[in-house]
Amino acid sequence: MKHALSVTRDQDFAAWYQAVIAEADLAEESGVRGCMVIRPWGYGIWERMQRLLDDRIKATGHENCYFPLFIPLSYFEKEAEHVEGFAKEMAVVTHHRLIGDGKGGLMPDPSAKLEEPLVVRPTSEMVIGAAFARWVQSWRDLPVLINQWANVVRWEMRTRMFLRTSEFLWQEGHTAHATAQEAKDETLRMLEVYRSFAEDDLALPVVAGEKPENERFPGAVETWSIEAMMQDGKALQAGTSHFLGTNFAQAQGIKFQNAEGQLELANTTSWGVSTRMIGGVIMVHGDDDGLRVPPRIAPWQVVIVPMLRDQPEDEELVRYCKDIQSNLAKLSAFGEPVRALLDLKHGKAATKRWGWVKKGAPVIVEVGGRDMAGGQVSVIRRDRLYREDGKLDSVARPRGDVEADVVGLLEEIQAALHEQATARMKAGITPVADFAGLEAHFAEGVKFPGFAEVQWAKPTGAALERVVERLKALKLTLRNVPTDAAPVDGACVFTGEPAVERVLVARAY
Amino acid sequence: MKHALSVTRDQDFAAWYQAVIAEADLAEESGVRGCMVIRPWGYGIWERMQRLLDDRIKATGHENCYFPLFIPLSYFEKEAEHVEGFAKEMAVVTHHRLIGDGKGGLMPDPSAKLEEPLVVRPTSEMVIGAAFARWVQSWRDLPVLINQWANVVRWEMRTRMFLRTSEFLWQEGHTAHATAQEAKDETLRMLEVYRSFAEDDLALPVVAGEKPENERFPGAVETWSIEAMMQDGKALQAGTSHFLGTNFAQAQGIKFQNAEGQLELANTTSWGVSTRMIGGVIMVHGDDDGLRVPPRIAPWQVVIVPMLRDQPEDEELVRYCKDIQSNLAKLSAFGEPVRALLDLKHGKAATKRWGWVKKGAPVIVEVGGRDMAGGQVSVIRRDRLYREDGKLDSVARPRGDVEADVVGLLEEIQAALHEQATARMKAGITPVADFAGLEAHFAEGVKFPGFAEVQWAKPTGAALERVVERLKALKLTLRNVPTDAAPVDGACVFTGEPAVERVLVARAY
Repeated sequence: MKHALSVTRDQDFAAWYQAVIAEADLAEESGVRGCMVIRPWGYGIWERMQRLLDDRIKATGHENCYFPLFIPLSYFEKEAEHVEGFAKEMAVVTHHRLIGDGKGGLMPDPSAKLEEPLVVRPTSEMVIGAAFARWVQSWRDLPVLINQWANVVRWEMRTRMFLRTSEFLWQEGHTAHATAQEAKDETLRMLEVYRSFAEDDLALPVVAGEKPENERFPGAVETWSIEAMMQDGKALQAGTSHFLGTNFAQAQGIKFQNAEGQLELANTTSWGVSTRMIGGVIMVHGDDDGLRVPPRIAPWQVVIVPMLRDQPEDEELVRYCKDIQSNLAKLSAFGEPVRALLDLKHGKAATKRWGWVKKGAPVIVEVGGRDMAGGQVSVIRRDRLYREDGKLDSVARPRGDVEADVVGLLEEIQAALHEQATARMKAGITPVADFAGLEAHFAEGVKFPGFAEVQWAKPTGAALERVVERLKALKLTLRNVPTDAAPVDGACVFTGEPAVERVLVARAY
Repeated sequence: MKHALSVTRDQDFAAWYQAVIAEADLAEESGVRGCMVIRPWGYGIWERMQRLLDDRIKATGHENCYFPLFIPLSYFEKEAEHVEGFAKEMAVVTHHRLIGDGKGGLMPDPSAKLEEPLVVRPTSEMVIGAAFARWVQSWRDLPVLINQWANVVRWEMRTRMFLRTSEFLWQEGHTAHATAQEAKDETLRMLEVYRSFAEDDLALPVVAGEKPENERFPGAVETWSIEAMMQDGKALQAGTSHFLGTNFAQAQGIKFQNAEGQLELANTTSWGVSTRMIGGVIMVHGDDDGLRVPPRIAPWQVVIVPMLRDQPEDEELVRYCKDIQSNLAKLSAFGEPVRALLDLKHGKAATKRWGWVKKGAPVIVEVGGRDMAGGQVSVIRRDRLYREDGKLDSVARPRGDVEADVVGLLEEIQAALHEQATARMKAGITPVADFAGLEAHFAEGVKFPGFAEVQWAKPTGAALERVVERLKALKLTLRNVPTDAAPVDGACVFTGEPAVERVLVARAY
């Protein structure tokens, strides 16, 4: 079987990932170090993700705001742990004007140097916390439940499209509460929003759980994550939710008068999901013919490709296809109108077909003159491209049947992608009883080690550092402590002490 | 009549504008120079504007993308006129790391200085044009029709919320075409999209026309705008569409092989609308009680305020209101579900009522125990708050009638706001025959001079500069040459030569 991409997952997973991004027109290098251009198909997927996640964020009572891109340097001096976590990768604005450099080029104008340099936000705790301090006076002002869709910048030394770019797009939620319990509840509520968004909208199975101490967000008391398993067995942290306690409130003066008239510090949270998740969708749902986009987040769910021949007969064929398109657009899938595109671009029908296969449109409807004459269309479903004999599974069917079945088909594809990925992830999580087992499980040459689930005594401080170092030698990291893990019944794989919980260990992006 | 704001439009228009922004919770100073925080009600209006304009942009065949925030300095060296237009107000990133300054503070790390400084985009022609140069090879690749929703930074010395901020949010469309005519058609197509968006969605009457040479976008061949008239008579440029000819294509190498196999430069356009338009909505629709939001862009179109008394009876009242809310949400206005909020926040009912008046929710539905007992509700429509006797116009009506009428009421309010503003603008455009007339029309103390429509000989170069200087002495600017102006029938007000067209002159934001 010949595939549409020049490289398969098996041959070279990293090269395959880049090939999908290029061939599906998702994104490209921009010429600006570490920054990418997100092309229409990639951005269309992001827009769908935004819409669906935004609905969930609003349904849980949050409102969107917008805060400044720039954060004065002095804001970061307030929270030592936080700044230490980000200082190494901050883009700093120092001038506000350009002038000629006397050699025909340009340079920052020395006479327009900022008194206080500005940091391009790597995350917005510091500037949003300052607003919270203004907004919160009394217990009646709480909770404050805010979200922001924005770009952020972290100056990464090694970048990879979608997964790690100097600039990326995300949403960051920030909330303030009267009690630690309410803030913890919020932290877990948003973790659940992320989990269900990933599973139900992106067809992306994930493990929700708490990150170990060494993997916490700088300044957080608790960090929770959802972790997805890529087709090479590596983990991708796909969203995080942080309980910040009073750490940030202390640094920024977010105080309120409680019902008894006493001044208290608020408890805050923050949580975010970024364009990184698109990388997860690619590495979970892609195959050797390109991307397969789950119907809920597909910019176009059905693409109609007429076999045009630059002949007068084309006109009738286009009318026939327009009619199908307009019938499909009247249907509703997943509570929204079906998104059906009629592709009238220049080019050969076969080239266009394979273009849409590579992009991963869930359903491709091809219509030739003969189909039209017979009142038929040919349907390709992207999640199951080939018949058992290896031939492309393109079935000509009466167009009325196709129109009647398309909503069910989209639902079926959404479910099938989720099932496949869930089966893979479940099979890919292996309980490992001791450190030697861990070494064997992740030995070089093992094709798909996936995640190891180990029991541990939850060491902290220096003891935890030793564990992290031992794992690092195997290129492994601690992922999270699954919320739905089985009870412990053994010894810590690292120390032999009685275990207190189960934690996932994996290679990771 | 006592009004909800501490200052009226009549007393001090500029102070009134700030008061609306503060009292309607639209935005606030952020503590970061020239940057504002857009609060939930202000951002909710922006989200509605985005949704409606985005639909129009997509309906005209454009796709959304995302391009980098940072533009290398060298990119700007390619288009001299363009860089000259923006160099004075560019934020420049020079370092990518912070370190301690040895005094307990932070500073940019001298060892992490960028080899090439990066400019925070003031507009994206230079970085998007570079992508177009990669994408366009053949005539078959044209047109390229792209839009981006993004933040941009122009280091303004004097800022005013929404109208002029160092960072602002906008959409910027960028297109490339095979011929100048196609690019000109696109320029005018998007001008019309902006005009109809302003009129139909924002209830904002505008004059569409071409900007004179001196007001062109840096590097453009033609710049077109929509100009709105504020309640103080000043003009606000609310959107622009630029025909760039081959200027940017030349600078950036956007070339294609035409059908005859010859290499040609593409013709490009760009067009943008920003959060500035929210300032226009405030200054056109606001009154002395705050903002009046046109229903199409209101985050909440109907707000239900139960008169809670912290008594057990509250429960029944809330049930009654929830029922109303759910009935309203089943209705459709302007092709979308009615957006109805039930306001259950702490606070006195009267305070909450006036809060929503100041925010400008189109319809406020108040429900007290007595209303409920009689199966009624009290309705306030925000566009006509008072009866002729000066009392608040709050009418108790059977709830079934209110539910049945609410869609019509929203449509009526949308139309009424548009009519009021249109009448004001029409009355505010005065033909002026000579320069002395212009001086008199804009003499100090004239309350509402509005726009003057004058005939002119369309001078260029130095002659135009002299006109601009004469107008500047009167604090006036040339706005645009309306596309629907009457034919000329007189002499140029500046030179006495035969006029060739009519141009609008006004004070402006």
